[in-house]
Amino acid sequence: MIDLFLIGIGTGNPEHLTLQAIRALNGADLVMIPRKGESKADLAELRRAICVEVLANPATRIAEFDLPVRDGSIGDYRDRVDDWHDAIAEVWGRTLHEGCGETGKVALLVWGDPSLYDSTLRIAERVGKGMPVRVHVIPGITSLQALTAAHAIPVNEIGAPFLVTTGRQLRDHGWPEGVDTLVVMLDGECSFRAVAPAGVSIWWGAYVGMKEEIIVSGALEVAGPQILTARAEARARHGWIMDIYILRRDAR
Amino acid sequence: MIDLFLIGIGTGNPEHLTLQAIRALNGADLVMIPRKGESKADLAELRRAICVEVLANPATRIAEFDLPVRDGSIGDYRDRVDDWHDAIAEVWGRTLHEGCGETGKVALLVWGDPSLYDSTLRIAERVGKGMPVRVHVIPGITSLQALTAAHAIPVNEIGAPFLVTTGRQLRDHGWPEGVDTLVVMLDGECSFRAVAPAGVSIWWGAYVGMKEEIIVSGALEVAGPQILTARAEARARHGWIMDIYILRRDAR
Ligand SMILES: C[S@@+](CC[C@H](N)C(=O)[O-])C[C@H]1O[C@@H](n2cnc3c(N)ncnc32)[C@H](O)[C@@H]1O
Ligand SMILES: C[S@@+](CC[C@H](N)C(=O)[O-])C[C@H]1O[C@@H](n2cnc3c(N)ncnc32)[C@H](O)[C@@H]1O
Repeated sequence: MIDLFLIGIGTGNPEHLTLQAIRALNGADLVMIPRKGESKADLAELRRAICVEVLANPATRIAEFDLPVRDGSIGDYRDRVDDWHDAIAEVWGRTLHEGCGETGKVALLVWGDPSLYDSTLRIAERVGKGMPVRVHVIPGITSLQALTAAHAIPVNEIGAPFLVTTGRQLRDHGWPEGVDTLVVMLDGECSFRAVAPAGVSIWWGAYVGMKEEIIVSGALEVAGPQILTARAEARARHGWIMDIYILRRDAR
Repeated sequence: MIDLFLIGIGTGNPEHLTLQAIRALNGADLVMIPRKGESKADLAELRRAICVEVLANPATRIAEFDLPVRDGSIGDYRDRVDDWHDAIAEVWGRTLHEGCGETGKVALLVWGDPSLYDSTLRIAERVGKGMPVRVHVIPGITSLQALTAAHAIPVNEIGAPFLVTTGRQLRDHGWPEGVDTLVVMLDGECSFRAVAPAGVSIWWGAYVGMKEEIIVSGALEVAGPQILTARAEARARHGWIMDIYILRRDAR
């Protein structure tokens, strides 16, 4: 039996690591680190840095593996993702078999928290179809919490709900009924432009928790254009960007 | 100027603490610990235990204070909460003034993450009206992440939104349009009973992250009654309970 630990590492600040995460890492026989190719090299680098920083167990081995790329020839989005997850599950299976054989503790570092817009749990399930695997999840700080911490704001109004959603959902379906607070993730396109700005405030952040962190907030009418500029500029400078924001309808 | 650090401590597992939280605690001149009265004594106890465990700075002082109780004679809910927050802000102000004078670093340990259904940030704002205060937030593991970790599940379906809401909202407004996943918090009344159970699954947890942790999951039709029993029994045994759950409409 393989014990697979999916360890949330927070969003780029090495000090987001919890004591539980550090303990799990040091309990592992094998740590698997994906290499994602040039553009996101920073993140593989960060994973390595975390291992160097907190791994005190000399018996823990590190195995790097190349993350497969999506097969652009598959037309349907869901099929393409399915195919990609299968390919990743296969590489994981191979890597952990080579590193551990049939039994052992294997750790994977997951950006933020493994529960939130992340495919690691779904891939782990596929690996589990090919060999006996028990999955353990260690929670981590999410980008949403890094965002609210940077702005020092609550995510909810008192006793009120909030919706966590994606840029695509916001573009395709607009602002949903019955909720005044939206958290928007996975948005490569500043989809807040699809929202009528009057009476809406935004709290935006890129690279939250990292040394590159930038935050902007204010009335959407004013802050929106500032964010467009700041985002384009930061993206050009760093070669990549990850951003997240909260939209709130002002109390009426 | 007072620097006030609101430090997320996770949901009862002392190993939820992040390295950033430990650093902030040890950087504080004063740590304020609220005493909440008998029934929740466990939590004040846990805060003390955390301080004992991770405080390595002999210069850091600890000040306990009695949390004011809500004034039951105020009829309106919002007014009652407002009045209560004012009273807490006053006690904080007094405690930190006695402990630090006009300048210093003061830490407050916040359950879970300070951004999520927590009044600490709103109270800090009130303290800031009476004296110059700079608020810093250190993110912590939320009960939602402790729940998803315990069940080893993602909170969202691929690319889909989810709504975080309260038991009262679910009872008063039912299942909102356009979203198939609900996270329900602050629910003293098993409000999932207000949902038509056919085609709905539930992932429930009480005391998540703590040694008392209990989890139940399955089709709402089957798991719902099991949860009612488990919850009543656990509540009677421990004298208090905190629970959280995810409801999901099965794919159609
Ligand atoms: C694939 S999801 C993974 C989320 C991650 N599991 C978490 O807990 O935050 C990636 C999205 O998370 C958000 N994100 C992750 N890290 C971020 C960061 N450091 N700054 C801003 N946004 C971030 C962005 O919206 C990005 O598109
Ligand atoms: C006042 S809110 C505070 C939430 C906290 N700030 C967080 O980040 O989780 C309290 C609610 O959080 C949930 N909760 C907090 N800790 C929990 C735990 N250990 N187990 C289950 N639910 C918990 C329950 O729904 C409870 O009613």
